[in-house]
This record gives sequence, structure tokens and C-alpha cells, in this order.
Amino acid sequence: MTDYTQILVDKTDGIATITLNRPEKMNAYTRTMGEEIMAAMDDIDADDDVRAVIFTGAGEKAFCAGADLTPEGGGHVFSDPTQVDDLSDERVRDGGGLLTLRLFESKKPLIAACNGVAVGVGSTMQLAMDIRLAASHARYGFVFARRGIVPEAASSWFLPRLVGISQALEWCYSGRVFGAEEAKDGGLIRSIHAPDDLLLDARAIAREIADNTSAVSVSMTRAMMWRLMNADHPMEAHKIDSRAIYRLSRGKDAKEGIASFLEKREPQYPGKVSEDLPDFYPWWEERPYK
Amino acid sequence: MTDYTQILVDKTDGIATITLNRPEKMNAYTRTMGEEIMAAMDDIDADDDVRAVIFTGAGEKAFCAGADLTPEGGGHVFSDPTQVDDLSDERVRDGGGLLTLRLFESKKPLIAACNGVAVGVGSTMQLAMDIRLAASHARYGFVFARRGIVPEAASSWFLPRLVGISQALEWCYSGRVFGAEEAKDGGLIRSIHAPDDLLLDARAIAREIADNTSAVSVSMTRAMMWRLMNADHPMEAHKIDSRAIYRLSRGKDAKEGIASFLEKREPQYPGKVSEDLPDFYPWWEERPYK
Amino acid sequence: MTDYTQILVDKTDGIATITLNRPEKMNAYTRTMGEEIMAAMDDIDADDDVRAVIFTGAGEKAFCAGADLTPEGGGHVFSDPTQVDDLSDERVRDGGGLLTLRLFESKKPLIAACNGVAVGVGSTMQLAMDIRLAASHARYGFVFARRGIVPEAASSWFLPRLVGISQALEWCYSGRVFGAEEAKDGGLIRSIHAPDDLLLDARAIAREIADNTSAVSVSMTRAMMWRLMNADHPMEAHKIDSRAIYRLSRGKDAKEGIASFLEKREPQYPGKVSEDLPDFYPWWEERPYK
Repeated sequence: MTDYTQILVDKTDGIATITLNRPEKMNAYTRTMGEEIMAAMDDIDADDDVRAVIFTGAGEKAFCAGADLTPEGGGHVFSDPTQVDDLSDERVRDGGGLLTLRLFESKKPLIAACNGVAVGVGSTMQLAMDIRLAASHARYGFVFARRGIVPEAASSWFLPRLVGISQALEWCYSGRVFGAEEAKDGGLIRSIHAPDDLLLDARAIAREIADNTSAVSVSMTRAMMWRLMNADHPMEAHKIDSRAIYRLSRGKDAKEGIASFLEKREPQYPGKVSEDLPDFYPWWEERPYK
Repeated sequence: MTDYTQILVDKTDGIATITLNRPEKMNAYTRTMGEEIMAAMDDIDADDDVRAVIFTGAGEKAFCAGADLTPEGGGHVFSDPTQVDDLSDERVRDGGGLLTLRLFESKKPLIAACNGVAVGVGSTMQLAMDIRLAASHARYGFVFARRGIVPEAASSWFLPRLVGISQALEWCYSGRVFGAEEAKDGGLIRSIHAPDDLLLDARAIAREIADNTSAVSVSMTRAMMWRLMNADHPMEAHKIDSRAIYRLSRGKDAKEGIASFLEKREPQYPGKVSEDLPDFYPWWEERPYK
Repeated sequence: MTDYTQILVDKTDGIATITLNRPEKMNAYTRTMGEEIMAAMDDIDADDDVRAVIFTGAGEKAFCAGADLTPEGGGHVFSDPTQVDDLSDERVRDGGGLLTLRLFESKKPLIAACNGVAVGVGSTMQLAMDIRLAASHARYGFVFARRGIVPEAASSWFLPRLVGISQALEWCYSGRVFGAEEAKDGGLIRSIHAPDDLLLDARAIAREIADNTSAVSVSMTRAMMWRLMNADHPMEAHKIDSRAIYRLSRGKDAKEGIASFLEKREPQYPGKVSEDLPDFYPWWEERPYK
């Protein structure tokens, strides 16, 4: 699937850029946009040439101004006519959560380049990304309590992990929209950039990864960190990293890593995420919605 | 119950203020004080007019100088004559923990306005509050190791979550008393205030919540964040927020939220915490002490 | 065991200092070094005179330059000839993880005084220590993805807990080596010190603990914080701290703590970690590798 209608996907020199592309609507989120991002992630995860993914918004004003509440938004919850009694029904599932759970499964590093307004799902979708950069005029808002609803997209799991429970609550309690400085002080973003530098700086981070590291190592690292930080004991991490070190240290990327290090040259890792993840990957079970 | 003897409870314009009120004893904590705070919380949770709660201490010197170790303290652990062998007996339960677990259950946002000395349980009771402000002369101390005991009030769960394990250990290992600047640098408090501004600034935060948001949204947000950040997978958050969005987006507060937004006017949310929490609330089971 | 060959162990005035001692190899880590540190920890945990442990490296250049990949390193994974099919076999276990899991069990506070280069396991072994200080010329690197392997030593559990998932991923994705300032900004270390002051300042922190607190309180606090911060509900912490307060408040250190406090004199706690931990310690079950 490459005939996207609400996003743009560019792949250049090992870096994919997904651009939310409804600039006339401030890139407001629709069900279609969510489905297209998920399709693009499937494509990117399967494409060994892609080493990192950057997310940004079209135009200079917005990353994503939240869910499109107009009829064009298409089946938004506020206007959803269905009446399901069984809350474990798949139709009850929040679209933002479908997206962040898909990002959680990503095999590639995810970098948010927040180029303007990001409210509601525009903010919460970024929480499942690994590294968040913002333009100096970016604005965030966890505005749900000002709309009579609650934070979605599994952000009650993601947000306190990123910024601490107190900051998470203060932003969600007030629902206020705040700027890049407050986002940086609160730990939501890594760094603030001049608007013209934002994408260049995001690409430099992706470049450093792509040029120096094993794709298999990075993919395993992503899965290990997001999944094992939550374990109730460090032994759970030890079980997985022991297995990973055991397998990977005998693999072709380790051979190249050591050789290039000793020979003081740039590495050329042959390993592919599609083929060379260790035999015990994935080590977890699917988590059902039920 | 409104005939409190060791606290004051004021309710004005939707904001409750609980003042620890033993200024001649630097508001030292007693079993009675703990019971009165819990009774006040029951009253506040049931009172739909209250949108947020501020905690502070009477006088200019202290928030709470720890447990009252004198006979007036009434049955403090150090002088407790009971000898229970079964440690799962209810009589073994720490009074500070009874209080913080009650605060954990709160349906309203909790704001600490720390107006002076806060040591021992004076510090740890604040950990279960959502947002912590301090006067410039405030002082904190996790002094337990200097008394031959250990941090109580479930602070081994709360404190590392707020300030990280390394800072938590350093403060508890040394047992030293430290000032507002160190508390701010270490992530214990949100902000430092001139003593005369402290309550005004705390009220401004409460005001922003009360004036702009749905009480039902805020109450659900509190329960979701505190409970779901600990889940072992973001799917657990997705299950709950999907159900919450599904129900609330069809409710009266969402209707008002959208209408006021589109009409660019102040919202007037009709929902009540006592009546309008979603039908699946609470979604958790009671956690017994045994 | 005191005839160590790759570390030095000094015990002075209640403070143990473990020095990684292969300065001609930049204190590169070997299996032997790991075993010696673990043996030293067994000795220190059993020695009631030791109140805190400082870790540093010999020489002025390095704390530990990672795993020794030369034949002298002795059985490093990259050159391990064994081929085990069952990944739950004990021989698969990562040596760095054996070490950090042993540090996790420590009964004494652990302080890292990072006196220079610390890469690979030189960085990850410090994650299981409680408090991290660094000399101004210290350098860290989670370089695993540049070697075709993954972060080890259970660092997928430890690192995100210390610095947050986003910072942990950025350092591990890039594998870059970075300085003390970046380590401080990212939350990896507590403070930066002039090289000549590093050990003095580490000792001052240890001194403050040793001179003012109960060894039993500190040991219990360590176990409680590291183990209970991960609980899925604060009730789990309440269960343990209630039991601990109940027992310890009737014990000899509490008696001395209160008496010295009321008499305004220095305390002399009689309790011993080897004998006076509460009867329910340890309250957890061993976690097997299988």
C-alpha cells in the first residue's frame, strides 16, 4: 500500500519520513490517517533498508491538531452511532490506542519532529515514539478533560513513564495548551529547534544510528527496553539479554562490529531485521484486547 | 463529621483546603489527625461541589513536623504496648500508610502547599498527593534511618516513582533534612513560592482545573494515571481508556465540551462524580492488607 | 577470599572501597574481575563494620573500558567456543548480569565514583549501584549496537528506570560515547567532581550515612526501595513497611534513635545487619534464571 491519501511517506538514505498531510485541516487526525500510518509502519518494518522513522506534519503550523471532529473526520467517537453494550467488543477500541500500540511494536527507532500545534491525539501519538524533538513554536495539549473525555491512546501508561505522574496529572487535569519550553522543562521533549532546523536535526539523530550501528542490535534494543523496563525484577531482563548476547555475539554483525573496531574502520553490518533477529524473538505473547 | 479537632476544612468556590492544625506542636501528626484527614476525604469525595483539595499546615513554621512522639500523640508505634505476632494482623498496619492509601483512592486532585517544615510522615504523606508546591523556607526530611526505623506510608512505592531510585535512596540513606531548592532539583516538588504567595498559587492551579474541565473527566484521569502507569503492558491502559472514551464521548460532559468549544464560550459541565463515572468504574478489585 | 588479583578492596572507618585494578588495560572487565567483585560483596555484606561501598577504577584514565576482548579476558562471549542449544542453560547467562543481580542483592549502599572512561559493562555495572558520581573527564558509552550485540547486565531494566525510556534508547541506539555533562543532564549521574575531589566527595556521602543512621534501617531501606517501587499497587509497599515499622520500632536501634534525638547527642546504634534485620526478611522468593 503506497497510495496514501492523508500521509506522505518518503524513504531516503535509510531514513523514512512519515508526514501527516492534511495541512488545510492542521493535519487533524482521522480514522483513515491512523490506518495509513499503521500500513506505512508495516511496510517500514518489513523494509530492511529503513533504519529509522521520523514523524512530522505538513505545513508550518501544525503537527496534528487533534481528532477531526467534522463529518470529514469519518466515524469519530463523538458522532459514532454504534451502541455496543459489551465493552470488550473490538468496536469499542480507541483509534489512538490502536496506533500507539502499533508504534509500540515497531522494529525501527521512531523520532517525533513536532513542527507546530499538537493537541489531543496529536500529542498522545508522540508518546509511543522513542525520541521527541520540537520546533520552538510547537504547542502541546492534553485537552481531554476540556472536552468531557479522558486521555486516550494508552497515554495513562505512556505519559507518566515519560514525565512522571505529577507532571502528567497537572497537564491532563488542566487540559491547557503549553509551549515547547514547558514541554522541555517537564521532560516531554528532548530538545527545542529552530523551525528550519527541526527536520535536519531529526535526520542527524537518525543518521548517527544508521551509520554506526547494527540494525538487528537496534531493533532488539528497542524491544528489550520498552518491554523489560516494566518487569517486576531485573532477572527478567537478565533472562532475555543473556539469550540475546549469547546468540548475537556468535552472529555476523558482532563479527563485523569487532573487526571494524579493531581495524579502526567504518562498520558494514550485514544483518537484516527481517531475517536475523535471534531465534527466540518475539519472546512475548500477544496481548489481547479482551 | 465536621467537628474536627486537629485539622481545619474549608470549602470555598469549589476548592477544599485541609489545614493540619496543631501549630503549637508544629502540626505534628497523631492518629487522630490521620483519622480526621481520612474522614475529610470521605466527605470531599462525596461532595460534588469540591473540584480540588489543597493541603497545608497552620502557622508559618511547619507543614507537619512528623509523628508526635509525646504521650499526646496517642498510641504512636514507638510506645505502642501491643504485641502482635501475626504481622498480617490489621493492628500492625502503619498509620501513615492508611492515610496515603486513602489519598491514592481520592476522586479529586490533591495539591500539597508545603508551608514549612515537613519531616517523616510530614514528607511522606505528600507523596500520595498529585502536585507538590513549597514555600521557599520549606524543609523536607526522610529521617527514618536516623530514628532506627524505615520509610513508611508506602513511600518505597511512591518516592522512587516521583524522584527516581537514586535520589530516593540518597535522601532516605542519609536521613538529612533539606531545603526547597534541593527538593526542586531532585524532582520532589513542582515549584518554589514566596510564603505569602504559596496558597494563592496553589489555588490558582486548582482554579484552572475547576474552571475549565469536566469533574468526571478529571476524576477518571486521576484513577487511570495512578493505576495504569504500573501496568506491565500499554494494552492494559488501552482496555480502560477505550471503555472510558466510548462511554464518556456519548455522555453529557462531552456534549457540553464540544458545544462550548465550537461556540467559543466557557463550558458548564453538568456531570457529577457521584453519579456520572462510567458504569465499569471502579474497574479494579480492592487490594487487601493480608 | 582476600587474595584478589584484579581488584583492590580497602576497608577504612566503616567504608569499603572496591577498586577495579587493571590500570594497564584501562581496568577492562574479565570474568575473573566479575567473580572477585562478587566475592568481595559477599565479604562486605557479612561484615557489620562496613556501612557503605565505593566503586572506582585504578589510575587516572579509566573506571572500566568494557569487556576485555583479548585472550587475557578469558572466555569472553565473543570467543566462547561452547554451543549451548537450551537458552535457559546456566552457561548462557551473561556475566555482567550475574554481577548487577548480585549488586541488586547488596545489603549496603553502593556508590559509583566514576574516575574516567566507562564503556560497555563499565557503564552498565554502575546502573545497579545506588548513587553515581563522576569525575569531570569521565566518559560513558552504551556501545553495544556498535558491536553487533545488545545492552547487557539487565540494563534494559535498570537504565530506563534511571534516565527514562527516551534517554535510554537514544544512548543505546547511537552507541555513542558521551561526557559527564551529558550524563548529568540525562540523569545518569548525580554530580560532577574535580578528579582530585571525586573520592573525597564519595566518601563524604558514605560518611554522612555511616555517622548518622542505623545500619539495619539503611539495609532494609535499600531492599524495600529497589523491590517495592516495582509493585503494581502501593498496598504491597504498605504490607512490608507496616511489618518493618512494627518490628523495628520495638527494637534497639529505634530506642537509641529516639533517645539520642531527645538527648540531642550523636546516636550509637547497636543493631547489626547480620543479626537484626526483621524476622520476615527476606520477604521475597529467589528468582531463578530458568
